[in-house]
Amino acid sequence: MATKENGTDGKKPGRVIDGPTNPMVTPLLNDLYQFTMAYAYWKAGKQSARSVFDLYFRKNPFGGEYTIFAGLEECIKFLANFNLTDEEIDFVRDSLPGCEEAFCDYLRGLDCSDIEVYAISEGSVVFPKVPLLRIEGPVAVVQLLETPFLNLINYASLVATNAARHRFVAGKSKLLLEFGARRAQCFCFVYGNIEMEENVIFVGLLLCCYNYGSNVAAGKLFGIPLRGTHSHAFVSSFMSLDEIVDKALRSSDGKSTCEDFVTLVQTCLSKIQSSSSLCGIFSETNQSELAAFTSYALAFPSAFLALVDTYDVMKSGIPNFCAVSLALNELGYKAVGIRLDSGDLAYLSTEARQFFCAIERELNVPDFGKMIITASNDLNEETVDALNKQGHEVDAFGIGTNLVTCYAQAALGCVFKLVEINNQPRIKLSEDVTKVSIPCKKRTYRLFGKEGYPLVDIMTGENEPPPKVGERLLCRHPFNESKWAYVVPQRVEELLKCYWRGNADEAREELEPLKEIRNRCIKQLENMRPDHMRRLNPTPYKVSVSAKLYDFIHFLWLNEAPVGELH
Amino acid sequence: MATKENGTDGKKPGRVIDGPTNPMVTPLLNDLYQFTMAYAYWKAGKQSARSVFDLYFRKNPFGGEYTIFAGLEECIKFLANFNLTDEEIDFVRDSLPGCEEAFCDYLRGLDCSDIEVYAISEGSVVFPKVPLLRIEGPVAVVQLLETPFLNLINYASLVATNAARHRFVAGKSKLLLEFGARRAQCFCFVYGNIEMEENVIFVGLLLCCYNYGSNVAAGKLFGIPLRGTHSHAFVSSFMSLDEIVDKALRSSDGKSTCEDFVTLVQTCLSKIQSSSSLCGIFSETNQSELAAFTSYALAFPSAFLALVDTYDVMKSGIPNFCAVSLALNELGYKAVGIRLDSGDLAYLSTEARQFFCAIERELNVPDFGKMIITASNDLNEETVDALNKQGHEVDAFGIGTNLVTCYAQAALGCVFKLVEINNQPRIKLSEDVTKVSIPCKKRTYRLFGKEGYPLVDIMTGENEPPPKVGERLLCRHPFNESKWAYVVPQRVEELLKCYWRGNADEAREELEPLKEIRNRCIKQLENMRPDHMRRLNPTPYKVSVSAKLYDFIHFLWLNEAPVGELH
Repeated sequence: MATKENGTDGKKPGRVIDGPTNPMVTPLLNDLYQFTMAYAYWKAGKQSARSVFDLYFRKNPFGGEYTIFAGLEECIKFLANFNLTDEEIDFVRDSLPGCEEAFCDYLRGLDCSDIEVYAISEGSVVFPKVPLLRIEGPVAVVQLLETPFLNLINYASLVATNAARHRFVAGKSKLLLEFGARRAQCFCFVYGNIEMEENVIFVGLLLCCYNYGSNVAAGKLFGIPLRGTHSHAFVSSFMSLDEIVDKALRSSDGKSTCEDFVTLVQTCLSKIQSSSSLCGIFSETNQSELAAFTSYALAFPSAFLALVDTYDVMKSGIPNFCAVSLALNELGYKAVGIRLDSGDLAYLSTEARQFFCAIERELNVPDFGKMIITASNDLNEETVDALNKQGHEVDAFGIGTNLVTCYAQAALGCVFKLVEINNQPRIKLSEDVTKVSIPCKKRTYRLFGKEGYPLVDIMTGENEPPPKVGERLLCRHPFNESKWAYVVPQRVEELLKCYWRGNADEAREELEPLKEIRNRCIKQLENMRPDHMRRLNPTPYKVSVSAKLYDFIHFLWLNEAPVGELH
Repeated sequence: MATKENGTDGKKPGRVIDGPTNPMVTPLLNDLYQFTMAYAYWKAGKQSARSVFDLYFRKNPFGGEYTIFAGLEECIKFLANFNLTDEEIDFVRDSLPGCEEAFCDYLRGLDCSDIEVYAISEGSVVFPKVPLLRIEGPVAVVQLLETPFLNLINYASLVATNAARHRFVAGKSKLLLEFGARRAQCFCFVYGNIEMEENVIFVGLLLCCYNYGSNVAAGKLFGIPLRGTHSHAFVSSFMSLDEIVDKALRSSDGKSTCEDFVTLVQTCLSKIQSSSSLCGIFSETNQSELAAFTSYALAFPSAFLALVDTYDVMKSGIPNFCAVSLALNELGYKAVGIRLDSGDLAYLSTEARQFFCAIERELNVPDFGKMIITASNDLNEETVDALNKQGHEVDAFGIGTNLVTCYAQAALGCVFKLVEINNQPRIKLSEDVTKVSIPCKKRTYRLFGKEGYPLVDIMTGENEPPPKVGERLLCRHPFNESKWAYVVPQRVEELLKCYWRGNADEAREELEPLKEIRNRCIKQLENMRPDHMRRLNPTPYKVSVSAKLYDFIHFLWLNEAPVGELH
């Protein structure tokens, strides 16, 4: 099955879902109640009742007004591999009190050949209440998809949205590095079925413009460019320059060899110390650190990037780094830059930049001022925003915990609601209006204005005529009578496309390569009206229903509400 | 390999780590910098330098003063399976600029036969700064363990702690149900190597006294007792009682059959409606709901548990539930209870209980008032606490999102610090005192007082004599000179035990069955002094160092600090 083919290199993917069934994938990753319900449906003879469910969320995460949709590919692969083994069926039987043997036969024959899934394309910017997936099929089977689909979409969409927000606050010109492997709530990525996991974890990051990752397995599997340097432990594992035995370093052009790079580094350090505008900033630098940097440069002369805060950034880390970089420079190499992992990142990055520029000026080293400054240390949207406001010289942000755990909001509340059964529309009422579901098998459209921005999403009944370009259309708030608007769309895009229709290959959309999903995401994010995207008090994007659907919702609502109550 | 054997049934486990290597497990789940450092160590000829690292956390999660340690078994299994394939080594080579072929040969020969791991027993109550694991071995190899170990321990310990806190706030007599499958940031549980995943995800929950789970795969793999009912969709999938075709129900004793259970239900509903103290609460109940409940009871007459808030709890859900329960009662069955998933759970549970008791009294149905009332709907520590303060009649709490995502704090900040290399103690300084590491290869002890409570944890140098029962001992705060205490322990427990010593089986602790880990956890939690455990302003548990270690820390600190600075 395709991994790299379906990865970032943009090649047309094979139809990965036609690959062999993975024995690890099981519909048993499910809430028990999906099976108790399946049994009850089956007992009532209505297991095959044709049902339509919508999967959607009610509120954008992170206090924002947009969400990125991800996780679809996993869902489609789950459908393709849907199968219960005899052993699993035995377990289900034992878990259901009084379970009849004939139900086990029914389970044995289950697959998703009678299921239809319409979905918004992965990587799209999406909004509350609009179905991300519309799943149609025998009610007992569709219910068995609820828990897996919610699981697969919740986190993937959440982390994709988080990554998009990081990109937004960091700005287009900065590098973003994913540093989360040690804090992720998941190890599956490597243990698991790597193809199945592709979208769930890392596409989220990728498609939202992270530039690099630190996770080697992710790099291998999905072609994510890797970045990494060294840790504090590496620095403190050295005692002194005496430890360095092999001191020789070939020059960049391979034409000569410096037999004692250590002495060259020491000479460069003295040069910095004796420079008029640089002296006074530091006296003696830490020798463990200097030894560690020198060793690291000997290992990676063409990719020297040092963590400079093990002892004292300005008094030791920066001068030591500059000494090693200058020595590399004499041999024709160019150091990459530094990483700061503690302290006032705005202040330290500015100081470091000044020091680099002073060296460029004083010691006449071209481009030395352009060293890449990477910042890490529990960064998140707020800290990056605060750094921006304070002013800084950081070129790259390494974000770990806050990216992968979605620390600011660790779950997206997707739900899976019955909207129609046996052609009868169904509504789920609630005292909390935001929890009322929108009934009917629906179509959904995005309407664009003159400037090219999306104006509003609209849901209609399945058989209503689609909105037409240039034609005035009444868009109503689904629940609030007084909220409505006439819209004349300049472009209309139908959002739900068929991604699964039983085993019929021809009739459905191809799963897209990562690169296309990523491009869609970037393009759609750029195409949003800026006031929906700002961090502070963003304007909610409007989600509406057609006049006909509005009337129908309220007709059902009145019919379903308890007698004697006015809703 | 053992799963159930190592599960909750308490059988002595096979030595699961001796099983065949799992091809999915790879040290490539790692930050790139662990490999760049390995290369730099190797280039400097110090890849085999004997190093000691401590894995610990700096702050208890969730605003509390304790943490539950989990994830150890995964780490030990990771060590046992540590192996890089040729393909993976090729990838590492391509990821390291200028990587020499001889380094690849070095990687090819790597295993954990020269690694020693000492750890606190899994399921223990643990505290900041005290090493959970002490890992000793060749520095390049130990660094390759950092990211996987942090990943495996961070989430497992976090979710275990979360579960323990839920038990604490709910009280011992309540049932706790795990409902998180749909919101977990992980699908690996089923896709992954199920044995490797055991501890990571679900032991956390199990060992902290959750009674039931909803996740079927978890139930199958780890023997977690399952609970589940039905969803709102099940209720709204029914229109009317006419849909029910097969209306017959055998009595509980199998001696008779009620040919029309539907009519029996309707009769019972009328009986409730005509009862003097019950009438007036409702007029007409929702017929979809009644049909759904009736159907569900026909499928599970001995395990009838209904979700009663699809329409209106008191006007429809409760009377419908009672009608079906009374009908079941007439056939010798006993309904289990209800689930409330919205609204004021304190109020509704109290009202429901009163209604059940009124039926018990008015209609003379023994034990009807004892129906189990389950509450769900985004529950967390705070909401359970608030319910307790308000007063409620809930018997069981179903907690999903807030349990599995650790929504209140989605990561535990474990770190992995070098404390010694080639017998030289190392310290990591920081302007932030809480970030200063405690140097040296250490032993750690828990000292218990007269009442049996743990009093203090103390770290000593490796070769110091252990604390003795009945002997006065000076316990010092590691960094604060003015904080110290003399302690006379009544019992001393050494915390770190050897769980891995290369391939030498004899010399190390057995991995324990889940049941033992769980029992340890429960016992230790019960044995804590109550003021450490309370939710509001708990007293911090004291963590100390010996006088000798204190002096040594501060000697090193002075030596390492930048010249001219007073720390």
